[in-house]
Amino acid sequence: MTRILALCWVLLWTLPGIAANNDSPAPLLTTKQRFSMPVYTTVGGRTIKSLQVGWESYGELSQTKDNVILITHYFSANSHAAGKYHPDDAAPGYWDAIIGPGKAIDTNKYFVISVDSLANLGANDPNVITTGPASINPDTGKPYGLDFPVVTIKDFVNVQKAVLESLGITKLHAVVGASMGSMQALEWAASYPDWVPRMISVIGAGKSDAWTTAALEQWAIPIRLDPNWQNGNYYHSQPPLEGLAASLMLITQQALHPDFFNLQGETLGYQPLETGPLNDIRQSHSIVNWLSERAHSRAALMDANHLLYLVRACQLFLAGHGNSLTASMQAVKAKTLFLPAENDLLLMPYMAEAAHEALLTNKKQSVYDELKGQYGHLNGVVNIQQKAADINAFLQN
Amino acid sequence: MTRILALCWVLLWTLPGIAANNDSPAPLLTTKQRFSMPVYTTVGGRTIKSLQVGWESYGELSQTKDNVILITHYFSANSHAAGKYHPDDAAPGYWDAIIGPGKAIDTNKYFVISVDSLANLGANDPNVITTGPASINPDTGKPYGLDFPVVTIKDFVNVQKAVLESLGITKLHAVVGASMGSMQALEWAASYPDWVPRMISVIGAGKSDAWTTAALEQWAIPIRLDPNWQNGNYYHSQPPLEGLAASLMLITQQALHPDFFNLQGETLGYQPLETGPLNDIRQSHSIVNWLSERAHSRAALMDANHLLYLVRACQLFLAGHGNSLTASMQAVKAKTLFLPAENDLLLMPYMAEAAHEALLTNKKQSVYDELKGQYGHLNGVVNIQQKAADINAFLQN
Repeated sequence: MTRILALCWVLLWTLPGIAANNDSPAPLLTTKQRFSMPVYTTVGGRTIKSLQVGWESYGELSQTKDNVILITHYFSANSHAAGKYHPDDAAPGYWDAIIGPGKAIDTNKYFVISVDSLANLGANDPNVITTGPASINPDTGKPYGLDFPVVTIKDFVNVQKAVLESLGITKLHAVVGASMGSMQALEWAASYPDWVPRMISVIGAGKSDAWTTAALEQWAIPIRLDPNWQNGNYYHSQPPLEGLAASLMLITQQALHPDFFNLQGETLGYQPLETGPLNDIRQSHSIVNWLSERAHSRAALMDANHLLYLVRACQLFLAGHGNSLTASMQAVKAKTLFLPAENDLLLMPYMAEAAHEALLTNKKQSVYDELKGQYGHLNGVVNIQQKAADINAFLQN
Repeated sequence: MTRILALCWVLLWTLPGIAANNDSPAPLLTTKQRFSMPVYTTVGGRTIKSLQVGWESYGELSQTKDNVILITHYFSANSHAAGKYHPDDAAPGYWDAIIGPGKAIDTNKYFVISVDSLANLGANDPNVITTGPASINPDTGKPYGLDFPVVTIKDFVNVQKAVLESLGITKLHAVVGASMGSMQALEWAASYPDWVPRMISVIGAGKSDAWTTAALEQWAIPIRLDPNWQNGNYYHSQPPLEGLAASLMLITQQALHPDFFNLQGETLGYQPLETGPLNDIRQSHSIVNWLSERAHSRAALMDANHLLYLVRACQLFLAGHGNSLTASMQAVKAKTLFLPAENDLLLMPYMAEAAHEALLTNKKQSVYDELKGQYGHLNGVVNIQQKAADINAFLQN
């Protein structure tokens, strides 16, 4: 039940008013907090003034501030990793199955915190606070558009570090993230090794290879094709929602697996020879309409330029910014756990395996295991509880 | 050498003036022929007047016309399966490695023939003859655009049958095809079982499932986003070349595999943290530029509406048009050979396996084996000679 609801949350971002945790009498509650920085200098050497990001936490910070677990979020997510804002919210945060009182990441014990990324995809979501191309440039009074500086995974990490430092935190108990969040987790371990004794990479990678950089570009292309995009200057006209929805259709399919898709097809009564598309080139198959409707629904709260900047951040990813992944992993002090999904078609298991092997080459302590299930890449989001015990044990050692 | 040249042909469609078969003193020569039909009625019940398609042949038709092997071509190909038009052509047809004198499909023995598909992608290629949305509608004197009827894989087969009948042929020795060509091959075996004693499906499928229908739609979407597309009415203005190139970038990547892509990245000196894309959101990584340049180069000879119609033909594919794949396979009389590629990400091996299993369920004679290599789906085109001996033996039994 939790798994299905979490998947719906990922696919829909909206759900009918079903209480998600009706087996849990008192849902974990949280609030979005705001963090501000007067000026931030990017890895690329550009400055962002009046930087603002949102953050959430679950559990209590200990007096010695030694119980902090940072959760770094995936591409289309934000810092709402667990819990609800209000008891009657349709669904909790995306990893609620493993974050909460008595759960794998136990909020009775740990202070769990997560931060909205720069250029967060959900720029128009009232529960997201982010700074990106849709933000007002204080120097011009207008949205940045493509004048916003390129930001990297390391920039996301640097901003998270500033948030933690503002709370008096100087070290983590662990950093844990899925997908783009796994990139940030490994970046943390490589760039700030004294902060990170434990790192968990779920459905992750250590760097973007040529295949992944090209695949990410395919997500950006439909946005740039949309005539409403206008080189990113659409903030006073119609946004490029068709291009954005096209990008989301591609992302959603690549993040899933034929096993799930074909079950969904059965639910819809999908047939190759459906009458509509046989008779009219302008009509589509049931499975295409299903995918398209969900993408259009999600696009409303997202910003197309932000998607371009997230694509670029992931393309530029090499944990630690060393000369190679093996060179970068030399600095790591954390013990690490890699949990790719065995049937992941987006970040295939060879990527997590390469990072794991680069750590072993450097005589680091690393464990590799695989998630199973019908969801492909999304097994790391909607099907994570299968590794709850392993995650819990890893965090306690 | 042949493999690399064949891959270049697939990716580039143009090559510098290097003789491809400089180890072969007398290249197989062929000429494009034209076939015309005054009227053709589609599976969907619409009529196409003055239908024309091109065809090629290699080898000699026997007096009893009992030595015919039909080659059905893949999505971005045409009937140029082997040989050259002129001895100084840059490259031969795509399956020249297995079609020719003394080769797996021996033109000293067989009359090998192939037919350009309806709505062939290379509508602007002077070596392609096809009828599709870019053709003039005799009723209006203008290009059809989206008024062209939807056509199916079975329509391609029906037109091929008309070509064969025009030559006095009433039965095949075998039908052999890769990818979209495999769909036609199995359609032949299911729809015209008395014609087909042998069928070889390379990197193939028996039907389009929900996953594949959605994945195919992703190829169509960038074209419809291009402002030049104008609902398909672009024949008197600028064609939607950006949308078409975007579609080709996606197709090319999905037809390959990370193993090949990452080797190509090494050749280009790809690095995640390349300076251009780090400094400017408008710049791209070397691997993206490589993919984009090849797609733009190929787009020049192709028609965007034709791509939409080919996508639809593949989406509507269920061999034999039965109630299910198992029901459709009941009529087959051919012995069959399935050769998917083990690392195919486009038509994954489970699809060929399902068709093979549906035949076994019906007590038919079927063999299943897998292609290997770094090219993913394209192992079935550029790496086919690894199964030359098996194909040759299968055709002789």
